[in-house]
Amino acid sequence: MMVEAVETFDGWYSLHDLRSIDWTAWKYAKEEERQNAIAEFTELLSKWEAVEENKQGSHAFYKVVGQKADFIFMFLRPTMEELNELETELNKSKFAEFLIPAHSYVSVVEISRYQPEKPGEDLENTPYIQGRLYPTLPKWDYMSFYPMDRRREGNDNWYTLEKDVRGKLLYEHSKTGRKYAGKIQQVITGSIGFDDWEWGVTLFAHDVIQLKKIVYEMRFDEVSSRYGEFGEFFVGTIMNKEELANYLAV
Amino acid sequence: MMVEAVETFDGWYSLHDLRSIDWTAWKYAKEEERQNAIAEFTELLSKWEAVEENKQGSHAFYKVVGQKADFIFMFLRPTMEELNELETELNKSKFAEFLIPAHSYVSVVEISRYQPEKPGEDLENTPYIQGRLYPTLPKWDYMSFYPMDRRREGNDNWYTLEKDVRGKLLYEHSKTGRKYAGKIQQVITGSIGFDDWEWGVTLFAHDVIQLKKIVYEMRFDEVSSRYGEFGEFFVGTIMNKEELANYLAV
Amino acid sequence: MMVEAVETFDGWYSLHDLRSIDWTAWKYAKEEERQNAIAEFTELLSKWEAVEENKQGSHAFYKVVGQKADFIFMFLRPTMEELNELETELNKSKFAEFLIPAHSYVSVVEISRYQPEKPGEDLENTPYIQGRLYPTLPKWDYMSFYPMDRRREGNDNWYTLEKDVRGKLLYEHSKTGRKYAGKIQQVITGSIGFDDWEWGVTLFAHDVIQLKKIVYEMRFDEVSSRYGEFGEFFVGTIMNKEELANYLAV
Amino acid sequence: MMVEAVETFDGWYSLHDLRSIDWTAWKYAKEEERQNAIAEFTELLSKWEAVEENKQGSHAFYKVVGQKADFIFMFLRPTMEELNELETELNKSKFAEFLIPAHSYVSVVEISRYQPEKPGEDLENTPYIQGRLYPTLPKWDYMSFYPMDRRREGNDNWYTLEKDVRGKLLYEHSKTGRKYAGKIQQVITGSIGFDDWEWGVTLFAHDVIQLKKIVYEMRFDEVSSRYGEFGEFFVGTIMNKEELANYLAV
Amino acid sequence: MMVEAVETFDGWYSLHDLRSIDWTAWKYAKEEERQNAIAEFTELLSKWEAVEENKQGSHAFYKVVGQKADFIFMFLRPTMEELNELETELNKSKFAEFLIPAHSYVSVVEISRYQPEKPGEDLENTPYIQGRLYPTLPKWDYMSFYPMDRRREGNDNWYTLEKDVRGKLLYEHSKTGRKYAGKIQQVITGSIGFDDWEWGVTLFAHDVIQLKKIVYEMRFDEVSSRYGEFGEFFVGTIMNKEELANYLAV
Repeated sequence: MMVEAVETFDGWYSLHDLRSIDWTAWKYAKEEERQNAIAEFTELLSKWEAVEENKQGSHAFYKVVGQKADFIFMFLRPTMEELNELETELNKSKFAEFLIPAHSYVSVVEISRYQPEKPGEDLENTPYIQGRLYPTLPKWDYMSFYPMDRRREGNDNWYTLEKDVRGKLLYEHSKTGRKYAGKIQQVITGSIGFDDWEWGVTLFAHDVIQLKKIVYEMRFDEVSSRYGEFGEFFVGTIMNKEELANYLAV
Repeated sequence: MMVEAVETFDGWYSLHDLRSIDWTAWKYAKEEERQNAIAEFTELLSKWEAVEENKQGSHAFYKVVGQKADFIFMFLRPTMEELNELETELNKSKFAEFLIPAHSYVSVVEISRYQPEKPGEDLENTPYIQGRLYPTLPKWDYMSFYPMDRRREGNDNWYTLEKDVRGKLLYEHSKTGRKYAGKIQQVITGSIGFDDWEWGVTLFAHDVIQLKKIVYEMRFDEVSSRYGEFGEFFVGTIMNKEELANYLAV
Repeated sequence: MMVEAVETFDGWYSLHDLRSIDWTAWKYAKEEERQNAIAEFTELLSKWEAVEENKQGSHAFYKVVGQKADFIFMFLRPTMEELNELETELNKSKFAEFLIPAHSYVSVVEISRYQPEKPGEDLENTPYIQGRLYPTLPKWDYMSFYPMDRRREGNDNWYTLEKDVRGKLLYEHSKTGRKYAGKIQQVITGSIGFDDWEWGVTLFAHDVIQLKKIVYEMRFDEVSSRYGEFGEFFVGTIMNKEELANYLAV
Repeated sequence: MMVEAVETFDGWYSLHDLRSIDWTAWKYAKEEERQNAIAEFTELLSKWEAVEENKQGSHAFYKVVGQKADFIFMFLRPTMEELNELETELNKSKFAEFLIPAHSYVSVVEISRYQPEKPGEDLENTPYIQGRLYPTLPKWDYMSFYPMDRRREGNDNWYTLEKDVRGKLLYEHSKTGRKYAGKIQQVITGSIGFDDWEWGVTLFAHDVIQLKKIVYEMRFDEVSSRYGEFGEFFVGTIMNKEELANYLAV
Repeated sequence: MMVEAVETFDGWYSLHDLRSIDWTAWKYAKEEERQNAIAEFTELLSKWEAVEENKQGSHAFYKVVGQKADFIFMFLRPTMEELNELETELNKSKFAEFLIPAHSYVSVVEISRYQPEKPGEDLENTPYIQGRLYPTLPKWDYMSFYPMDRRREGNDNWYTLEKDVRGKLLYEHSKTGRKYAGKIQQVITGSIGFDDWEWGVTLFAHDVIQLKKIVYEMRFDEVSSRYGEFGEFFVGTIMNKEELANYLAV
């Protein structure tokens, strides 16, 4: 039995990084220490913003609802090395002394190419595809992140389906997604070989209820109902550099 | 295969927040520290009560039986931001220095609409539905909370059932629920896209044995026996602001 | 498909509470602190004994074999509130400063009624059933505790079996149990709606090998082989108030 | 459906006890403290050796490869009480202040009796069976320990197989085992009712590669391929009392 | 049903060892302590390099992307004892006071021999096989490590397939692997009897995207789609002795 994989276009490397604040340690630190930590961390944020303005990467910064973490960062960079350096720089920062690692996810922005190219076409280098591979992450009010697998279980085995069947199921799925145009922006990142699940899904929304609506509606698509396995979900509200001092005031 | 999702009405956002007390740290704190912590926490409780009185949200506060946690809070608020702020305010409080985060769950009060609207009807805006979407949580003696999924496994796949089949199974299920009218009050919250399970179920009871009876009896409904997956269960007895000082006396 | 649940008789509420000793902290405490801790804890034990003598509850106290915990308590009380108070009192005790919570389980003594009552019979109020619902736990040499579920998986789904089929399978099972009369005493507690599994099984034995023999033999009964799911097992040897000082001497 | 269990012969009770060393605490202890800890622990080892010489029990002591633990002990004793006492004595020792509990397993040496006794035979009391029930554990260079279950899943359900079918499958399995005579010594311990898995398998080898070869080859026996479920594996190299001071020198 | 296992050739023993840095402790250490830790650790690295130059083993040293760990080491040595000694020496080092064990994996370099030997052939001792059994690990820019099992589930049971069927499926799989010649170097290590999964897969790449591409493409091979179960994935970028001081500068 031979089943054909598909080509993917791969863009920026991605690191989701979640941290909890050790509020007791933070409160017991000296005011000066806290101010230094905030100042240095604000500089990091500014540095990341400069990277984004220079189209050398992008990032998202949200407050997580619930106890899973306090912050969720999503970093996009051209290389794994840059992700590693960025993470190490954050780890060495003063503020990190008050942060507890809560979760991380390593992946790469990915577009699966189920449609064959037309003769002469260079799909990957179209502005549309380039924009999706190297995106500036939206600064919308809400974000949801979860990892997922395609199921391989008895008769529900995605990886034994023929390519055209998979393509058709994904096409149906994309039609559900399109109903949410303008309401939801989605970034798919591939993590096979990099992290524990096969894909990461990051959704941005203006209205948080749309995050529930799209994932709920999509679950009835055959590609999800029979072939989707889902991991932990994280939901957050947007965080701003300007809001930081107030958020951390104790 | 196309299966139709259903519309949902969505109300207040919900945060279940469980905390354990670090009793040793609490005992070794100075009496003054403890009194300050209780006083400040009592103010928080009063603040939340005022929100409830103003119909801007609601909350439940119970003592958890067993070692999973000491307290379970359930907070309902109009926005995720308010949940985030409330959680952060609690985290920054003096009392939180003696609390260990034990579990949390993020969801939204949800009503599934399987019945079609009659012409001219605006079901969502009826007082009955509005009351259920924006409820004042009962202060009954006992509470049970658990998350759940609908199963997607081989021949037992909820998400491949037609809408009318799902509606019928849920209708049968609701008949079991109705037997417990006056004994059990139930709040269903949806968490697809927000947290690790698809729904949260919060039950309130005057008599704790009814919590067992309803969940046991419902498990024989096909919607549970074949299509229900259940997570952790938490059970608690009601906590009062007035009882706090005594409860925390050491 | 309508499957009938069965009535249950419910007795005392139950809390299994496992704790590990922080031996290093215990050794580094002052001798006086240790003596105070033992004295206060001995008073707690005496208090619980008085409750038992007054038939207002019962408890078991065993030393756990292996690293899962050092102590396992099983408490039976008329209300959940009493379990909560008892647990809080233990948490506030001096000795608890040296104990690490290891596990807990919340349930209620339960008897399933598969046989129909004869006309005029009031089964629940017979001395036999009352004795089983409000038991004085035996002080036998060994104890084993484990939680369990009835399976709901493909063709092995307990909750889709008709009541008379379930009754027959349980009746066969009870015949295996009866072979161990005098060797094993069993307390079944229900935890649907209260804790993560559906039932807890607590076994007491004079000879520890009988704990293995009964669970092994019962596993071949269809009710277990096809419909049983088992959780963690804890085994212990009996602990006495008199033995405590010696056990804790360092 | 009635399936017959088999009789077992049961020997010494068994405790596998794994501990990690807190190397930083160990290094920061005073040299005198360390010497006392080693001296006291060496006495414990001598005590256990005397038990073994007196045929009142046996033990194994290996260094675990990898981070799961530093030491693995396997203790055999006539009663659960002795295991409990031994464990408590170890916990109270000076050395235990530098050890972190990593894992434990409670079981009993077990031989399943699938063959019927011949008339007049008293199999259990033959020297061969007695030697296997109350063994002196070999001091071979390598050890592997893992727990296992017999599967109960759909069509692969060990506990619904007839006794003679199970006996035949185990007999085939034993033939694979016999190929490793002289290379591998195996101790099977039963833990139904005592710990989380049904059996523990402890293997000793002169050549560590034989541990892999036997488990790999056996996995193709139907009794494993269709009916075996395996837990965590721990592998170790032998430790000696004489080597201890050197091993712990910092 | 008798299914034949295959012979394996086994080479060096392998330890994957992952560690996280306690950055706060590291920053609060005295500069002199840090310098001593780096100097001593650099000596360890030099010692390991000498072992590699003498063809007495090999090792890889990478920085892990994400929060799972900071460093991943892979050590190859002729004996388990050497792995144990190496690990203990690392544990006793000054630098280890600032390292938190994050994960480990114990296995042995393994080649499965599905093809029969030709008469007179001594395959194991050919330079090609010897080179693969006792490899010098490449110092390529990226590394990925993950453990895996062959599935034993219902109709997807690797261990009930005949040897020639397994051989054919693996041969198909190897053809996918060969497409990545020069891009990916793969080391397969066997861990049955040694650690929790059956095999470890360690991949090295010049271009990190190839790690994703090969694992993704291979997942469609029947040997993976129907018979592969995969564990945690770790991905890293290469680390050098020269880079260490800079990496650790705070």
